[in-house]
Amino acid sequence: MPVPILFLADLPAPAMATWTSALAAALPDDAILAWTGANDTQPPSALLADISVAVVANPPPGLLARLPALRLVQSSWAGVDGLLADPTLPPVTLARLIDPQLAADMAEAVLGHVLMLHRQVPAYRAQQAAACWQPLAQPRLAERRVTILGMGEMGQASAALLARTGFPVTGWSRSGRRVACSGVPVLAGADGLAIALAQADILVNLLPLTVQTHGLLDRAALARLPRGAGLINAGRGAHVVTTDLVAALDSGQVGHAVLDVFPQEPLPQHDPLWHHPGVTITPHVAAPTDPHSAARAIAANIARWHAGQPLAGVVDRAAGY
Amino acid sequence: MPVPILFLADLPAPAMATWTSALAAALPDDAILAWTGANDTQPPSALLADISVAVVANPPPGLLARLPALRLVQSSWAGVDGLLADPTLPPVTLARLIDPQLAADMAEAVLGHVLMLHRQVPAYRAQQAAACWQPLAQPRLAERRVTILGMGEMGQASAALLARTGFPVTGWSRSGRRVACSGVPVLAGADGLAIALAQADILVNLLPLTVQTHGLLDRAALARLPRGAGLINAGRGAHVVTTDLVAALDSGQVGHAVLDVFPQEPLPQHDPLWHHPGVTITPHVAAPTDPHSAARAIAANIARWHAGQPLAGVVDRAAGY
Repeated sequence: MPVPILFLADLPAPAMATWTSALAAALPDDAILAWTGANDTQPPSALLADISVAVVANPPPGLLARLPALRLVQSSWAGVDGLLADPTLPPVTLARLIDPQLAADMAEAVLGHVLMLHRQVPAYRAQQAAACWQPLAQPRLAERRVTILGMGEMGQASAALLARTGFPVTGWSRSGRRVACSGVPVLAGADGLAIALAQADILVNLLPLTVQTHGLLDRAALARLPRGAGLINAGRGAHVVTTDLVAALDSGQVGHAVLDVFPQEPLPQHDPLWHHPGVTITPHVAAPTDPHSAARAIAANIARWHAGQPLAGVVDRAAGY
Repeated sequence: MPVPILFLADLPAPAMATWTSALAAALPDDAILAWTGANDTQPPSALLADISVAVVANPPPGLLARLPALRLVQSSWAGVDGLLADPTLPPVTLARLIDPQLAADMAEAVLGHVLMLHRQVPAYRAQQAAACWQPLAQPRLAERRVTILGMGEMGQASAALLARTGFPVTGWSRSGRRVACSGVPVLAGADGLAIALAQADILVNLLPLTVQTHGLLDRAALARLPRGAGLINAGRGAHVVTTDLVAALDSGQVGHAVLDVFPQEPLPQHDPLWHHPGVTITPHVAAPTDPHSAARAIAANIARWHAGQPLAGVVDRAAGY
């Protein structure tokens, strides 16, 4: 009997079932051993002892360390900050999800939110609540400068779609690695960040969460934006210092913020952010992982692994993504 | 002294000044005679008697009939339903504004609103008001069928941009005239309308207001939409039977309506539409005429007129646009 692939995921039962069948469909030659990590459903130790490949989604901390034959951990998500926060994570190869569908979905969400801010929908919404009819001066699309922080797969797809739609787009890559994004200038490093922020009429955060990017959007960074700039955070909640953002919204330094991610998710019901007039909240839905397209991408990576080929999305633990 | 071009426009003083200087810049060889139509500022009758070309924006009814030498009326707006409502309008050549900038602005507004409805922003806004975190199932862009009613310059530009972004788009042209809109199927006539409505997950109205299209979006038409469809009206308010739309919203037949135009504008402050949770209201700002680009388009048309060449946007009074 071949050794199964472990799907270790702390997900609700319906999501567990969807993922497990999507993985089974994408990996027809493998057995999938699904486990939420709960003690009372633990597979036999003899079976776990042979596991060499684990596909994971929110795996309970500590469990991967108990798999002696483990060689590859393939994440079901694009972000691996949660996974890397487990200090017991064994030093095996770690891959994050690279799914073109995910990048396309993110680009679509970013374009929608950028157009919403560009067309001043939040201001018109406030006017509507007051039954106020007041056309506002409308800058042209070609005058609305958008900066994308983070030029990975999602940042590149978003930048390309925005540029194709006519927005002047600048990218910023912390690492400064060369990215191929036709026609979009990409800045790097601390100096580049200062420039990228100063020209961001709309700032879009798509960075991975790492030690270097945690709290990057603080008071000083927000102060560099043009007055009244829009912010779209679809990276991680911890990129933004929430108290600094609220202060910037209250002073008018930031005109409106669209927040899809939060330091704690779900955003607690008593959080005052819910009712801030300068904030649009969406429940981490900018680019939800699609189990079916993700399973195909994961299967392709596992096939590369078995064939000894380079994997897509290998995580550099020092960099944090 | 050459005969001036009359700019007859019932606009507030700042708009009057902007338009007059934009026209003067675009028509450097002509004198521009600006008049709001008010009696106490009427130009000398001898001057008016020689006017052969009038550029108009909301001209007070009856005044054009008092220009004996008038040969061409060039509208500053794309829609001429207001102008044609003046029964004294003399039977001279009438041209509406054809400005590529206007079509681009409309396409941008339509894409923004379509993405907003596609991404379920109104539903998330309602959840935000209730501090409710509930990710919703999200159809793919390629599954969200958009129908555009009206395949003039603005309809074609909107259809092309939506199709380029990945939406499956169908156009409907009442007249059935051949439109070149690459890759977008265009239906026509009453049978075509029934099909176009039945597959409109999001319906965008960009028709001109004519006798044929007045009240087109009534109870019967809205009932043909897929249940929960979105509606974007950026044509004219009178295309939609408001009481039928409200009933369709209340029953869930229409999921959300974005209304940029209204039977009476500004929308009266006591109108209950302002506070309907299923309605997003913007104050006729989808594609505001830009005096500078419009003046250039108008100047080009006047040059064609003087050269005896065919004009852009000649109005067919029987068709109403």
